[in-house]
Amino acid sequence: MHSYNELARLFEERFRKNTPFPDDPESLYEPCKYLLGNGGKYIRPVLCLMANELIDDINEDAWHAAFGVELFHNFTLIHDDIMDKAPLRRGKPTIHTRNGMTAGILCGDVMFIYSYRYLSAIRTSLPEVLEVFNTTGIEICEGQQLDMDFENSNNVAMDEYIRMIALKTSVLLACSLKIGAIVGGALGDTANNLYEFGRNMGISFQLQDDYLDAFGDPERSGKQVGGDIKSNKKTFLLIKALELANPEQKAGIHALLQTDSPDKVDTMLQLFRQTGAEAACKVMIRDYSDAAFRFLDKVAIPAKRKQPLMDLAEALIARDK
Amino acid sequence: MHSYNELARLFEERFRKNTPFPDDPESLYEPCKYLLGNGGKYIRPVLCLMANELIDDINEDAWHAAFGVELFHNFTLIHDDIMDKAPLRRGKPTIHTRNGMTAGILCGDVMFIYSYRYLSAIRTSLPEVLEVFNTTGIEICEGQQLDMDFENSNNVAMDEYIRMIALKTSVLLACSLKIGAIVGGALGDTANNLYEFGRNMGISFQLQDDYLDAFGDPERSGKQVGGDIKSNKKTFLLIKALELANPEQKAGIHALLQTDSPDKVDTMLQLFRQTGAEAACKVMIRDYSDAAFRFLDKVAIPAKRKQPLMDLAEALIARDK
Repeated sequence: MHSYNELARLFEERFRKNTPFPDDPESLYEPCKYLLGNGGKYIRPVLCLMANELIDDINEDAWHAAFGVELFHNFTLIHDDIMDKAPLRRGKPTIHTRNGMTAGILCGDVMFIYSYRYLSAIRTSLPEVLEVFNTTGIEICEGQQLDMDFENSNNVAMDEYIRMIALKTSVLLACSLKIGAIVGGALGDTANNLYEFGRNMGISFQLQDDYLDAFGDPERSGKQVGGDIKSNKKTFLLIKALELANPEQKAGIHALLQTDSPDKVDTMLQLFRQTGAEAACKVMIRDYSDAAFRFLDKVAIPAKRKQPLMDLAEALIARDK
Repeated sequence: MHSYNELARLFEERFRKNTPFPDDPESLYEPCKYLLGNGGKYIRPVLCLMANELIDDINEDAWHAAFGVELFHNFTLIHDDIMDKAPLRRGKPTIHTRNGMTAGILCGDVMFIYSYRYLSAIRTSLPEVLEVFNTTGIEICEGQQLDMDFENSNNVAMDEYIRMIALKTSVLLACSLKIGAIVGGALGDTANNLYEFGRNMGISFQLQDDYLDAFGDPERSGKQVGGDIKSNKKTFLLIKALELANPEQKAGIHALLQTDSPDKVDTMLQLFRQTGAEAACKVMIRDYSDAAFRFLDKVAIPAKRKQPLMDLAEALIARDK
C-alpha cells in the first residue's frame, strides 16, 4: 500500500522516463513536453493506481491507465486554456500564449490521441475500460461547453451548475478510480462504488473551491480572495445567494454585478452571508463529502486497504487553500 | 459486391438514421449535426467497407469502423478549418465562423471521442484496430503541424513535402482500408498491402490536386486555376521548380512570389513548364499511382472482388476536376 505522496513520486518518475513524445516535428512535440515538464499534482493517475492497489499489487495495465488519464487531463487543460484565454498554467505561459493558437489546438489533439494509445495497451477488460473512458471524455466536453454557456447567461439554475461541475471536474476523478479498479479485476459493484466515491468527492472539492475563493484565508491559500466575485463568475455562492435573496438583497447583488467598486468583494461577501448562501455552501460541501465516504464504505475491501484513498479524500476535501 | 456509389448511399442512410449525438447541450451538439448534415463524399468509410467486403459480406464491425473513420475525418476538418481560418466547408460556413472558436474546438474534441466510441464497439481484433487508428491519428496531427510550419518556411525540401501530404491526407485513407480488412478477418499481408495501396493512392491524389490547381481545365473542374500560385502555397510544382530552376529562372520565381501582378499565374505556369516541374509532377503522379496498383495486385484475393476498389482508385487518380 502506498500513500498519495509515494504514488505521485513513483508516477512522476515513470512518466518522465517514458515520455511518449518523439522529437519530430519539434513544433508539435516540444510544447507538449514543456507542459508536462511543468509538473502537476497527478491526482488522477494516483487515484487510478490507488484503486488498482485496493485489489492487489499495482499491475502494468494500471500504469497504462494512469499515463492515459494524466495525458487526457493535460489535453483538456490545453484546450480549456485557449477557450478561457488563460495566460498561465502551473505558473508558466500556456501553450497557446507561448506557441500560438495552432500549436495549442494541435498539441491538445495529439496529446489526446496519446492518451488513447496508452489505454489501448491495456489487456484486461479493454472494451469496458474504453466505454468508461469514452463516456467520461464526452461528459468533460459537455461540462466545458456548459461552463462556456454559463458565462453568457444571467440565469443559471443550481441543478445546472452542479451538473456542470460534475461533468467538467468530477467524472475524470471517478473514471480514474473506476478504470484502476477494472484493470485490477474488481467486480462491478466495487468499480461502481469507487466511481461514485470519486464523483461525489469531486463535486465536494469543486464546491469547496468556490467557498475558499470567497471565504478562504489568504494567508493559508497564498492567493487573494474574491477573484470569482470580481469577475462575476457564476459560482455556487452567487447562484444560491440569488436563489435565497429577498427583493432588496437581490437588487443589491445585481447592482454589485454591474460595478467594479473597491468594496464590491466585501459587500458581496456580506450578501453571501446574509442570504444564507455561505451556510448552504458549507452544508452542500459536507453533503457531497458524506456521500463520497458512504460510497467508499460500501466498497467491499478491508478498511485498512482503503486507508490511502481515505487519506487522500480527506486531504482534498478538508483542504484550506 | 457494391460500387462506390452504392456504398456511399448505404453509408449515408445509416449515418443519418443513427446520429450519435444527443440534443443536450445544444450549443455543443447542434453544430456537430449541422456539419454532418452538410454531407460529404464518404471516401474513407467507403474504403473501409470495400476492404471489408473484399473478404466476405460486410459485417457489423466494419460499420462501426466506417462510422469511426468518418467522424474522425470530420473532427480533423473542424480543427483544420480553425487553423486555416477557412470561412467555408462544403459550401457552408465553418463551425468556428458560425458558432465561434470555443464551439469549433469543443465540437471537434467531442466528435473525436465519438469516433473512438464507435471503434471501441468493434469486437474483432480491437487492439490491432486501435493500434492502426491511434498511429494514424498521431500522424495526421504531425502532418497538419508540418503543413502549418511550411507556411512560414521559405525552404521546404521535396521529401519533407511528400512526407507532409502522406501524413496529412494519405494515412487516413490507408487506415480506413486496413481497419476494414482487419475486422473482416484478413491476414496481415492483405491488410498491409491494402494499407500501402491506400497510402500511395492518397499521395498520387494529392499531387494531382496540386497539378490540377495549376494546369486543370477550369471548365471541367468548375474552379479557377492558379489559386495555389496566387497564395504562394508550397506545392509540389513550386518546390520542384525551385529545385530544377537555373539561376535566372529561380530569380524569376522569387520575384513572382513577392508580387500580386495580374500575370503572376501565367508567368509562374510558364516557369513550371520551362523548369520541367510540370513534367516531373506528372511522372510523380503516375509513379505513386503505379505503386498503388502494384500493392492492390499483391492483395491475394480474386481480381473480381477487387473491382470496386480498382474502379474507385481509377476514378480518384484519373479525375480531372
